[in-house]
Amino acid sequence: MANYLYHGKLAAKTGQAEKLTDILVEASKLVMKVKGCRLYVVSRTPAEPEAIFVTEIWDSQEDHDNSLKLQDVQGLIKKAFPILDGMPARGQELEIIGGLPA
Amino acid sequence: MANYLYHGKLAAKTGQAEKLTDILVEASKLVMKVKGCRLYVVSRTPAEPEAIFVTEIWDSQEDHDNSLKLQDVQGLIKKAFPILDGMPARGQELEIIGGLPA
Repeated sequence: MANYLYHGKLAAKTGQAEKLTDILVEASKLVMKVKGCRLYVVSRTPAEPEAIFVTEIWDSQEDHDNSLKLQDVQGLIKKAFPILDGMPARGQELEIIGGLPA
Repeated sequence: MANYLYHGKLAAKTGQAEKLTDILVEASKLVMKVKGCRLYVVSRTPAEPEAIFVTEIWDSQEDHDNSLKLQDVQGLIKKAFPILDGMPARGQELEIIGGLPA
């Protein structure tokens, strides 16, 4: 069973939230094909218009960490970086106890 | 496509985290069969030993809200309530933009 859940929030510079959302949706298409990725969801809330949330489920933290080293993913990180409002805070790194299909 | 993501944290009274986890895992088995539920994951982190996280994906917020009214779910809520450390804070209610299979 997948055992690693990451839930994090990225803040875009004012007016850049749509562009950052597009980059993250592009990332989701790429990352969902990577070994060990079970879920990569991009979400937002009207309550925080400059925030974009990413929720990921992986077979292991190692698979997640390895995905960040892939060349295409690095390319998207470079594209996103200039429109982020400061350094992103570390998200929640959680160990899955139950609730996923086997 | 599913459009509603809920990510929330429940705090157990000291020493009650295992029991609360068991109740939530039981809830996951029940709720994942409910109309509109795509995901109901229970997770924890050693960094916060009394906290249990629930991450849910639903076709709509309405489906989520309706699930809380089901008799079996109400039964589990009643079972969990006495071992919660105070009223649970409202979790993050997010609109899914992308990243899920259609």
